[in-house]
Amino acid sequence: MGQKQLFLKACAREPVERTPVWLMRQAGRYLPEYLKVRQQAGSFLNLCKTPALATEVTLQPIRRFGLDVAIMFSDILVVPEAMGMKLDFLEGEGPVFAEPLRESRDLNRLIRPKVEKKLGYVYNAIEEMRAALPSKVPLIGFAGSPWTLATYMIEGGTTKKFTHIKTALYRDPDFLHMLLGALADTVIDYLNGQIDHGAQAIQIFDTWGGILGPKNYRAFSLDYMTKIVRNLKKTGPDGERVPVILFSKGCASYSKDIATSGCDVISLDWTADAKKIRRQLGDKVAFQGNLDPAVLYAPEEVIRKEVRKTLKSFGNKPGHIFNLGHGMEPDMNPDNVQLLVEIIREESSHLLKRNSKKR
Amino acid sequence: MGQKQLFLKACAREPVERTPVWLMRQAGRYLPEYLKVRQQAGSFLNLCKTPALATEVTLQPIRRFGLDVAIMFSDILVVPEAMGMKLDFLEGEGPVFAEPLRESRDLNRLIRPKVEKKLGYVYNAIEEMRAALPSKVPLIGFAGSPWTLATYMIEGGTTKKFTHIKTALYRDPDFLHMLLGALADTVIDYLNGQIDHGAQAIQIFDTWGGILGPKNYRAFSLDYMTKIVRNLKKTGPDGERVPVILFSKGCASYSKDIATSGCDVISLDWTADAKKIRRQLGDKVAFQGNLDPAVLYAPEEVIRKEVRKTLKSFGNKPGHIFNLGHGMEPDMNPDNVQLLVEIIREESSHLLKRNSKKR
Repeated sequence: MGQKQLFLKACAREPVERTPVWLMRQAGRYLPEYLKVRQQAGSFLNLCKTPALATEVTLQPIRRFGLDVAIMFSDILVVPEAMGMKLDFLEGEGPVFAEPLRESRDLNRLIRPKVEKKLGYVYNAIEEMRAALPSKVPLIGFAGSPWTLATYMIEGGTTKKFTHIKTALYRDPDFLHMLLGALADTVIDYLNGQIDHGAQAIQIFDTWGGILGPKNYRAFSLDYMTKIVRNLKKTGPDGERVPVILFSKGCASYSKDIATSGCDVISLDWTADAKKIRRQLGDKVAFQGNLDPAVLYAPEEVIRKEVRKTLKSFGNKPGHIFNLGHGMEPDMNPDNVQLLVEIIREESSHLLKRNSKKR
Repeated sequence: MGQKQLFLKACAREPVERTPVWLMRQAGRYLPEYLKVRQQAGSFLNLCKTPALATEVTLQPIRRFGLDVAIMFSDILVVPEAMGMKLDFLEGEGPVFAEPLRESRDLNRLIRPKVEKKLGYVYNAIEEMRAALPSKVPLIGFAGSPWTLATYMIEGGTTKKFTHIKTALYRDPDFLHMLLGALADTVIDYLNGQIDHGAQAIQIFDTWGGILGPKNYRAFSLDYMTKIVRNLKKTGPDGERVPVILFSKGCASYSKDIATSGCDVISLDWTADAKKIRRQLGDKVAFQGNLDPAVLYAPEEVIRKEVRKTLKSFGNKPGHIFNLGHGMEPDMNPDNVQLLVEIIREESSHLLKRNSKKR
């Protein structure tokens, strides 16, 4: 191994010369080169399941923007699919489970998959990605949180109201806990496999934690993520520490609780008051975030102003990875992403240089 | 005037013998008697604009459940319509402004309406409602917050991504501030008219404040609501104080800021930690909320448990109005609403009796 990569240093709260940056959903429909591969793949799921194509789209934003980290191209819903649920992605509608889970006996339809067999295509992709990536760019693996996966499995797809999972939560919490427990076990197997095959960091996406109040968030989402964090391998095959990032969207006010999970990094969305949260949590964890993605619709001077604000809000202590507060959107302009990445480099170098002189 | 109503006492943080209760969207599609009137009206907008029908549906939940407060039946989007924007409600799609606002010159299409003329149907409805309501049941008037109205006027309807208003916020904040200022002025006129015609309390609905980070929330939403609160008549024609309730969904963590607006009551959604927020804010304001509406899908024992938790979380100081953390949904069972209201009466009477003995 050469020098420790910038991103992994920041995750470990070691000093860096500039703030590392990656962007949630950095591979995707806003990139013309992605759309080409997507068409070639035929379907979105086929793109996820073909290691050569998944590798190509994972590398595209690295090549184009020189980002500091790659995240494997995949989808969180491959886990429920591996557990036996039929998954479709319908054009314009998003993911659909035609036979959602609604009560305890539906759990009989689920299996605990042998991840090497059922999700081997992800592991093959990770190995291809690692081989293709420059060694200075580490690779992030990921999974959905049990709560977030359960929302899709119970609702049957994307929802605004969460009627079925909320009904389960209040009417039949045992069913929900059984499902969440089964998901946590499978996610542990799945992520440990990712680490074995070369993922150098892990992010857990809890897209829907924010629809829960503080107590239910802890009982139905955070406790299961904590179980996952505690059961992940601490180091990869190369002996390096594999940091874990938790991203619970809309849950900034639960950060103190989230830090107790044992995660290395808390990823904040754009509504979070980073300054306040860092002050509360001190040096317990590193942070990732949290530029409002909509800043990418703005002209250069606004992007610069907002980048400066974001960098300053995280303060001058080590342990910040720059990211958006949510994912890239298809209508965003790749040229603005280029600009954003350059501005982050410039501004964070200046800021960190100034700060080191002050000390 | 007879004795001060329970709801108005709670708004003024005066002691009550039981916690008053009403439910956001208490008149609506979950009630068969509403559906009948809705059909009779032909269109949703026609229902809003026909005082006799609006009065009928306002009274339905009062008659059926004996709730402690009525809220006038109307829609927040009658304000942009009165300002000159063509509004349609499409079946299954919700509200649509076919010609949304996108830049400064689009503001030329807006007028500052003479509210007595353009929104006189609302005032006529308020007078009919007051005449029909028992005197122990006060009537709440309402308006959307400037920020929330602007999202619909700029996006053109319901959205998940808020692309256009966010683009305006970062690219052309002057345009946005001009629009928000114009909306605040009209809302002030509109609400003062409601007070003149008999509204005994005012609620401002800020459904989309939660998509903003703390600084932008203050600059683009709270500041305009504060302007409204400061410019409302403090008392109605009967000389009674007219309390103002602010409801910014997803903004519980901004409660300290919200209290500086001068509002009398902060309405909290179900994700709020009421105990913590009341502890932080002490006796500055009263609170409304915040049962998860999905509890209405649960059986009686769960409803009772969750009502107890909610009552306890607001503590034993005066100044709590029981409500849901968000609105009723069309698939909810009216029998469970009846049960909920009875349970709140019982449990809050017990709790308040126990507490008064302790003192």
